[in-house]
Amino acid sequence: MREVAILGVGQTAVREHWDLSIRQLAVAAGRAALADADVSRVDAIYVGNMTSGNLNEQHHLGALVADHLGQWGVEAVKLEAACGSAGSAMRQGIIAIASGQMDAVLVIGVEKMTETVMEETTAALVTAADADYEGIHGVTFVSLNALIMRRYMHEYGYQHGDFAPFAINAHANGAKNPNALFREPITQKIYERGRVVADPITLFDASPIGDGAAALLLVPAEQAPGAVRVVGSAVATDTLAVHDREDMLWLKAAQQSAQRAYAQAGIGPEDVDLFELHDAFSVMAALSLEAAGFAERGQGVRLAQEGEIFPDGRIPVATMGGLKARGHPVGATGLYQIAEAALQLRGDAGAAQIEGARIAMAQNIGGSGATIATHILRNPIAH
Amino acid sequence: MREVAILGVGQTAVREHWDLSIRQLAVAAGRAALADADVSRVDAIYVGNMTSGNLNEQHHLGALVADHLGQWGVEAVKLEAACGSAGSAMRQGIIAIASGQMDAVLVIGVEKMTETVMEETTAALVTAADADYEGIHGVTFVSLNALIMRRYMHEYGYQHGDFAPFAINAHANGAKNPNALFREPITQKIYERGRVVADPITLFDASPIGDGAAALLLVPAEQAPGAVRVVGSAVATDTLAVHDREDMLWLKAAQQSAQRAYAQAGIGPEDVDLFELHDAFSVMAALSLEAAGFAERGQGVRLAQEGEIFPDGRIPVATMGGLKARGHPVGATGLYQIAEAALQLRGDAGAAQIEGARIAMAQNIGGSGATIATHILRNPIAH
Repeated sequence: MREVAILGVGQTAVREHWDLSIRQLAVAAGRAALADADVSRVDAIYVGNMTSGNLNEQHHLGALVADHLGQWGVEAVKLEAACGSAGSAMRQGIIAIASGQMDAVLVIGVEKMTETVMEETTAALVTAADADYEGIHGVTFVSLNALIMRRYMHEYGYQHGDFAPFAINAHANGAKNPNALFREPITQKIYERGRVVADPITLFDASPIGDGAAALLLVPAEQAPGAVRVVGSAVATDTLAVHDREDMLWLKAAQQSAQRAYAQAGIGPEDVDLFELHDAFSVMAALSLEAAGFAERGQGVRLAQEGEIFPDGRIPVATMGGLKARGHPVGATGLYQIAEAALQLRGDAGAAQIEGARIAMAQNIGGSGATIATHILRNPIAH
Repeated sequence: MREVAILGVGQTAVREHWDLSIRQLAVAAGRAALADADVSRVDAIYVGNMTSGNLNEQHHLGALVADHLGQWGVEAVKLEAACGSAGSAMRQGIIAIASGQMDAVLVIGVEKMTETVMEETTAALVTAADADYEGIHGVTFVSLNALIMRRYMHEYGYQHGDFAPFAINAHANGAKNPNALFREPITQKIYERGRVVADPITLFDASPIGDGAAALLLVPAEQAPGAVRVVGSAVATDTLAVHDREDMLWLKAAQQSAQRAYAQAGIGPEDVDLFELHDAFSVMAALSLEAAGFAERGQGVRLAQEGEIFPDGRIPVATMGGLKARGHPVGATGLYQIAEAALQLRGDAGAAQIEGARIAMAQNIGGSGATIATHILRNPIAH
């Protein structure tokens, strides 16, 4: 199997982009990745997106994006796995290069969510859950996560304030990233005063939606010896409905995809220098740290409290703001994570740079853990 | 690159399935393909679907289907390219096997369209077109195709009645297929009395929507020496908006994907024994025959009039009813086409059997020609 390298990285800032349509967002990120790679023609385009059919009246993004990037005739398709859409697009791009059939693949994650009323967006997001057995009861995506967080607090004896380090770290890091939606640090006091969204989740436990696009240009590693390599890539699924799981506090698909990716890379969690985890909600950050092997069961929050998730800690997370502060344009997020991990390994993360990082992991979650894509990147050159 | 074989075929009938949800349809077809292949565990599931987010309030079909097929933990994702979604899912399945990373891949196309009011379905379908430059003008998917048909008639001097053979052939063949939605033959007179939908398109020029699912189990060819092989697989795109094309009567992406597939297979159109074309509208059947090399420009209708598209003609099309009579559950159609082609090559097409068929081609179109997937199958064993 051919190894894959990331030759180009592009992104738009995450904002309420009132002046940019979904096509313009995707094209801007795609063009930036092509320019960064100095590549003009690709063999395929994989677009990760969740809600364009519901919120933008636009399906068929593969052809749309290929068309407006001037890549006429190219193979293109959209991939959807709820909030795991972009991580899944990355996975297909890697498989395509590995197949030997493609030598230059553009993967783009894009989402345009803020042009509709909030009720429409909330309705679109709950389609990530099981419509017949969860959505039909009126449960929203936030309330499902609230149930999980409440159970976590109950089982492991935490208080709401114990989750603060996840938000404090994310907002501090987002302040250093010009593409982040929120760029103001917060304090423990501000965290504790957060307005309740769905008890116990407050505004500071929930990531904000946004408009944005992130893109990567992938090539076979042998064509780009100095570029960041993808040394692990795996997707795993779990039951769609949370109530069907043996243990709602264990992200089985995170564990499985991380284990597969570790095995491919020939490493373990102890070798990972930074972890772009899927902190859509504070409790998901804790559960990801546990399932991916960075903390024992129930100890994800403890790890955060000990400061180990901060830039100078054992395993920095959300290094450029994470979903919480960079923002969560749902179907684009998985590629923001990988783009940021690649920038960190290249030494191009600016004020958010984690010094000496050589191995980075990104984990993108669809639904409440039903689809999880894990990618491990390595920089062959120390910077 | 590893060659791919089709080891299992499964499908539901195309109907208004009031008793089956989208998950049940997908699971039924998937189970049938697994049983046909005698395979119990797969490495990945690719689900082709277009409208589940709009019409079923259900995104995240990859994980949903994996879950309810009992394939827990497996890699899974949905692919969307409007009506070309299932052909695109097939393409990813082939790339996945070719990559050497997967040895058993289940591809499923599914659509559940008839549980909503027709206005919602019409609105969902026009998302296949360009929302900002086509949809915004109130143009529907049918009216876009009506403009193309009218132009075809004008340029090449045809009357509406000249298109009758496409519908007559499809309905005659659908009558022989127990899974077809329409199973009544029609006559020229019935065709000519068809109620106008969008002038010049009548009910007999437009394929019916429906609920249904089709599935294939793919394996490396070396593991299944007697099974039907995929010898050509290609996807190409064109401009999303019809008005952006140099020539609205030429399906450039059909030509490109067919040429790539022919080159892979080492054959030309003269070697193809049957052609499952995308007769969503009569004019699309004509344009496909021309772009794929079976007729000169403007001669697709002539070929049909000469009877060459009938089961005993030079190039039988829509051999089990096509989109017109088997029905067009949009995001599932591409896999119905390939499933039918595979059954024909296996000699399992029942009353619809084309005798002596060894090479079959299936072409799946998304939008008005913006995404086109072409697959060529070959039976290594003459039956």
